[in-house]
Amino acid sequence: MTIRKIAITTGGGDAPGLNAVIRAVVLAAHLRGWETYGIREGYDGLLFPERYPAGGLVRLLPDAVRGITALGGTILGTTNRGNPLHYPVRQLDGSYTETDLSAPLLQAFALHELDALVAVGGDGSMEIAHALAQKGLRIVGVPKTIDNDLAQTVITFGFDTAVSFATEAIDRLHTTAASHRRVMVVEVMGRYAGWIALNSGVSGSADVILIPEIPYDMEAVAQKIRDCEAFGQRHAIVVVAEGAHPKGEGYTIKEGAHAGHAPRLGGVGEHVAAEISLLTGKETRTVVLGHLLRGGSPTTFDRLVALRFGAAAVRALAEGQENVMVALDPPTVKYVPLAEATRRMKTVPLDCDTMLTARELGICFGD
Amino acid sequence: MTIRKIAITTGGGDAPGLNAVIRAVVLAAHLRGWETYGIREGYDGLLFPERYPAGGLVRLLPDAVRGITALGGTILGTTNRGNPLHYPVRQLDGSYTETDLSAPLLQAFALHELDALVAVGGDGSMEIAHALAQKGLRIVGVPKTIDNDLAQTVITFGFDTAVSFATEAIDRLHTTAASHRRVMVVEVMGRYAGWIALNSGVSGSADVILIPEIPYDMEAVAQKIRDCEAFGQRHAIVVVAEGAHPKGEGYTIKEGAHAGHAPRLGGVGEHVAAEISLLTGKETRTVVLGHLLRGGSPTTFDRLVALRFGAAAVRALAEGQENVMVALDPPTVKYVPLAEATRRMKTVPLDCDTMLTARELGICFGD
Amino acid sequence: MTIRKIAITTGGGDAPGLNAVIRAVVLAAHLRGWETYGIREGYDGLLFPERYPAGGLVRLLPDAVRGITALGGTILGTTNRGNPLHYPVRQLDGSYTETDLSAPLLQAFALHELDALVAVGGDGSMEIAHALAQKGLRIVGVPKTIDNDLAQTVITFGFDTAVSFATEAIDRLHTTAASHRRVMVVEVMGRYAGWIALNSGVSGSADVILIPEIPYDMEAVAQKIRDCEAFGQRHAIVVVAEGAHPKGEGYTIKEGAHAGHAPRLGGVGEHVAAEISLLTGKETRTVVLGHLLRGGSPTTFDRLVALRFGAAAVRALAEGQENVMVALDPPTVKYVPLAEATRRMKTVPLDCDTMLTARELGICFGD
Amino acid sequence: MTIRKIAITTGGGDAPGLNAVIRAVVLAAHLRGWETYGIREGYDGLLFPERYPAGGLVRLLPDAVRGITALGGTILGTTNRGNPLHYPVRQLDGSYTETDLSAPLLQAFALHELDALVAVGGDGSMEIAHALAQKGLRIVGVPKTIDNDLAQTVITFGFDTAVSFATEAIDRLHTTAASHRRVMVVEVMGRYAGWIALNSGVSGSADVILIPEIPYDMEAVAQKIRDCEAFGQRHAIVVVAEGAHPKGEGYTIKEGAHAGHAPRLGGVGEHVAAEISLLTGKETRTVVLGHLLRGGSPTTFDRLVALRFGAAAVRALAEGQENVMVALDPPTVKYVPLAEATRRMKTVPLDCDTMLTARELGICFGD
Repeated sequence: MTIRKIAITTGGGDAPGLNAVIRAVVLAAHLRGWETYGIREGYDGLLFPERYPAGGLVRLLPDAVRGITALGGTILGTTNRGNPLHYPVRQLDGSYTETDLSAPLLQAFALHELDALVAVGGDGSMEIAHALAQKGLRIVGVPKTIDNDLAQTVITFGFDTAVSFATEAIDRLHTTAASHRRVMVVEVMGRYAGWIALNSGVSGSADVILIPEIPYDMEAVAQKIRDCEAFGQRHAIVVVAEGAHPKGEGYTIKEGAHAGHAPRLGGVGEHVAAEISLLTGKETRTVVLGHLLRGGSPTTFDRLVALRFGAAAVRALAEGQENVMVALDPPTVKYVPLAEATRRMKTVPLDCDTMLTARELGICFGD
Repeated sequence: MTIRKIAITTGGGDAPGLNAVIRAVVLAAHLRGWETYGIREGYDGLLFPERYPAGGLVRLLPDAVRGITALGGTILGTTNRGNPLHYPVRQLDGSYTETDLSAPLLQAFALHELDALVAVGGDGSMEIAHALAQKGLRIVGVPKTIDNDLAQTVITFGFDTAVSFATEAIDRLHTTAASHRRVMVVEVMGRYAGWIALNSGVSGSADVILIPEIPYDMEAVAQKIRDCEAFGQRHAIVVVAEGAHPKGEGYTIKEGAHAGHAPRLGGVGEHVAAEISLLTGKETRTVVLGHLLRGGSPTTFDRLVALRFGAAAVRALAEGQENVMVALDPPTVKYVPLAEATRRMKTVPLDCDTMLTARELGICFGD
Repeated sequence: MTIRKIAITTGGGDAPGLNAVIRAVVLAAHLRGWETYGIREGYDGLLFPERYPAGGLVRLLPDAVRGITALGGTILGTTNRGNPLHYPVRQLDGSYTETDLSAPLLQAFALHELDALVAVGGDGSMEIAHALAQKGLRIVGVPKTIDNDLAQTVITFGFDTAVSFATEAIDRLHTTAASHRRVMVVEVMGRYAGWIALNSGVSGSADVILIPEIPYDMEAVAQKIRDCEAFGQRHAIVVVAEGAHPKGEGYTIKEGAHAGHAPRLGGVGEHVAAEISLLTGKETRTVVLGHLLRGGSPTTFDRLVALRFGAAAVRALAEGQENVMVALDPPTVKYVPLAEATRRMKTVPLDCDTMLTARELGICFGD
Repeated sequence: MTIRKIAITTGGGDAPGLNAVIRAVVLAAHLRGWETYGIREGYDGLLFPERYPAGGLVRLLPDAVRGITALGGTILGTTNRGNPLHYPVRQLDGSYTETDLSAPLLQAFALHELDALVAVGGDGSMEIAHALAQKGLRIVGVPKTIDNDLAQTVITFGFDTAVSFATEAIDRLHTTAASHRRVMVVEVMGRYAGWIALNSGVSGSADVILIPEIPYDMEAVAQKIRDCEAFGQRHAIVVVAEGAHPKGEGYTIKEGAHAGHAPRLGGVGEHVAAEISLLTGKETRTVVLGHLLRGGSPTTFDRLVALRFGAAAVRALAEGQENVMVALDPPTVKYVPLAEATRRMKTVPLDCDTMLTARELGICFGD
């Protein structure tokens, strides 16, 4: 099948690098003589064009993507709530039911003569892409997650920016913690996987790192902080992933679980800080990085991964591939079937090289 | 009186630039043939030397301060709880009473043959300095506040760094807010004065800024956010000082009030976000910057003010001045009597130039 | 005279903050019901509209300036070569003669029914503005200089960003210089005034600062570097303004001299490095910051000054003022007659507070 | 052989991350009960201890390495000139001859009872390490290069920091270039390999990238810049590696060539800028990043690689390995024989994924 027009969509939580993917797709498609169209806010731009005064599907010319590589977010907008296969529809009584809108969505693709789709998003978006592909759409997926929890790619864009900001924040907190002899607890994203906590904690010289993969014993944490004091370091930095939890109170993480299905956790940072204060008598303060980790200009690393993924997605289409997801297999890219793209979540292996390093640096994981 | 030895102390909450003051004092004193000694953690290093294995009073040679200008925090440590005139002493029943330790403190100064003191700190520290000066100590104060709420100086160090970080944070949040059409509420420091919120909000292109000086009407805030939407801007940034409060629920700010006497406020950001969500139906998220504003390497502006203040303190002593506080009177420094140093708190004048500008930019203050 | 339409132009070398001025002017004018039009590239957009496919004069709606505060450069473009009173016209033989294009320029203003002009630029631009004002145009000037060499304003935007970047660069060079025991020579802008060198050198902990205001003796510089070594500091940082020159070889700086009339200096950094190497036997390296100082997102300080200046320019027009330049008189803004705006260049006073501080920190100026 | 004491040395040009390696080695050795000693400035600290008042070999306790992960440079110092197998010795007539000092060096290791050495450095340092290993020293190498030109490791520390700074610099130059419609030529390190130019150029949205691997045709470059103009982009960014050269004037790069043997190139940026100006008539400016790329705090990515490499070096010794170099084989580390460590230089493969991406983005390589 010859390609003349392709569409691109960004779905799920935003991540630094989405715009770089969009730019690469537009330019690489342009080079091959294809037109690129952006769908606004997941698939809503195609399903509900009337909501978008300037159009729910917008032609993206090379001019329109100039300079966007360095911008955070996505110029197309995104949404966490627009799964077209289970679209939430508000009932008269205020409750919501789910409806399958895949038929009108496929009609809209046909109506606009879109020959293929580049779907950028996390595991939820890849599942949707896979389902649409099985209904006949020609799709290449591009993985996105700031949590680094996708199993089929060594890494993807967004994560390095998040870790870099978290590390910068920890750097800032060292001096104020030391001046006041405080314990600073820094809560970062990571409901199921502790990658952000681990990498920012190690590179930020944290004393304690608590991650979902290792249920913690608060007494071990307190002892580490007492040890720091005994060796003349009167402050401490504790990095906590939002999904960290004490021993015995753990929750089961199913393989294939998605963030969307998870119990909402909150305040683990405050909780840990309060317990440390109780057990050690030290002054503690908590900082929750939250959405600061999502924003901002992507790091060089993330820009390159994103640009390479965008170009690779177009290359895959040009080579006749479909229903695959681009993935990184350093130093090159590879393609994995969409069917396998979301199969497993990648948590931190307890014997991985960074964990070994962390332990050899004397970092305490609360176990 | 000839000076041979001077001491330096840093008190109150830490602020970026304290180390630059220390370095300038040490070098400027060295040039005049004086020795400089640092007192650890407010006055505790002199009062309780036994707590400090490496000494509560440390000789500061020029070598020891090399490279510290760029470091956040204070190499001497600081404390919020060591007012020597009202020192908290734990009783057998666990309660605290206050004791006046000024006599042993003055003895310690005499014992160590310290001829003068450079006291760096906020309004609380300046009050202590004034009291000690009245008891015979030769003191020059250096003002420090990240809140910019000292009346006797146009500005001091720490504030520019705090505002810069807050602005950078707001910059980061714009892209993620826009991608998700969210309202982002950013809570910054400022219990009595809205300077950080005002300056970071204006330079970060916020849509709404809530400060303690202007009790807010939540309906006005909601209307502004609806207006943004009507004009095609589907996200909004709301900056809230921690001391902001709704109309009618205000609390009285006495002239001369100090942070230490204030009711502990908390969660105003979360509160504002919840109300915005209720009134506008928009998704909101909250970020609390908190201690991130205190940490980090000082900006160039703060480094320069801090270095100039440190050098000016030594110059004042060399010129025979005492019981004064260094202040900025652009483009030069001046000296104000310690007695007047803490008299008034500087809140945001509602007709100041930055406020005028903010209103002309269309920013809403909730009034 | 009632105002309905105003124009804005940016001239001379670009500086971080120009876009913030533009945004403030557009929003503040919009609030008063005025329309704002941007002139492309100095006055060329009005004089030669045919060169601009999208128009030499562009309507600036509030939407068009959203998000530009954080952008470096100027969305209108700028030029160093378009003085409409002395416009360079290429002759058949390839030489240039100057022509006065003020008559057609005034006609263009009339044709477009522009009631007033906000002219943003350096001393050259203020001279042009003054000349045009004398011919009947209603003008408010906004000063811009990254060199901080305008006498009528304590400071203007662009300078803090330039100094901040220079300081960050010096910070970076300390560690590599120390690791290799090298002398690093950093050349910064400043042909007549040493402000950038002075401020970045002091805040970056330089050992030597060479500025145009103090002709240097290379032997004094070499001695300082030997002294550093004797005291155990085996590297050194030397900051050199591009207009620095040795004793005896000085050139006269006339009051009112403009950068455009000056002899092109270059390579003073390399020259100083070579002499230091010769006199001290130490390895030296040179870094020329050049255009890196002009680019990038403005600091918070510069954004605020620029926004305040833009709003103040519109306020001045609304109040009926004309032929004035906005200036900073901390903590407020003031207006000075355009006639006086460019009268004197502001070089570093040798007894200013920052110079005193620098000397008390032991920094060598080569004298 | 039981290990009780190990030494660590850093050699060659400094790179961000060296201190992180040192910290990881000290802490990981401490955990195993070993003592760590740092050798000053390559091997000079052992060969010429009399030059170091504080000792040429210094005990490194965990306290001494606290907080150094974030520091650029190396706390041990480094040198480009101290190959102990070919040590330059000054003759009476001022010339230099080379002497083999390996015997006294091995004696010094024996004298201090050092059981093993962690040698951190580039290809030159790995060659020395290999030679010393063959003489009986127990060595683990840690590769360092900001140029990313070592074949045996996918990547090493220092490179990401250099590319990040270069990208940030390019970001800054876009706005000033666009405002003045200029062509900005940015010269970066890379005498034999174009990695820094390629990665920073792609992530910084450069229009042209010139690397040593692709001799350039200046007319192709000029045409690209004319094309940019034709499509409405009136400025351009050209990134040039210092080893870039025109077609026909190329020099042969031997496999295994080292920077030390190379003809000194310089000014390629200025040269390219002058030719562009000549061919296109556009204003050009040049910026040479030089030593700015070496300095500064390492990025999170580089900190992690460096910490992992340091810990892995100690782990290798503990496992009884020797005469190997640590290398990255994502997501883990591996060990390669020192004999193979320096065999080939890694230039940019013209068909690598990043090159494909760059071409698909429309970037011109001058071919």
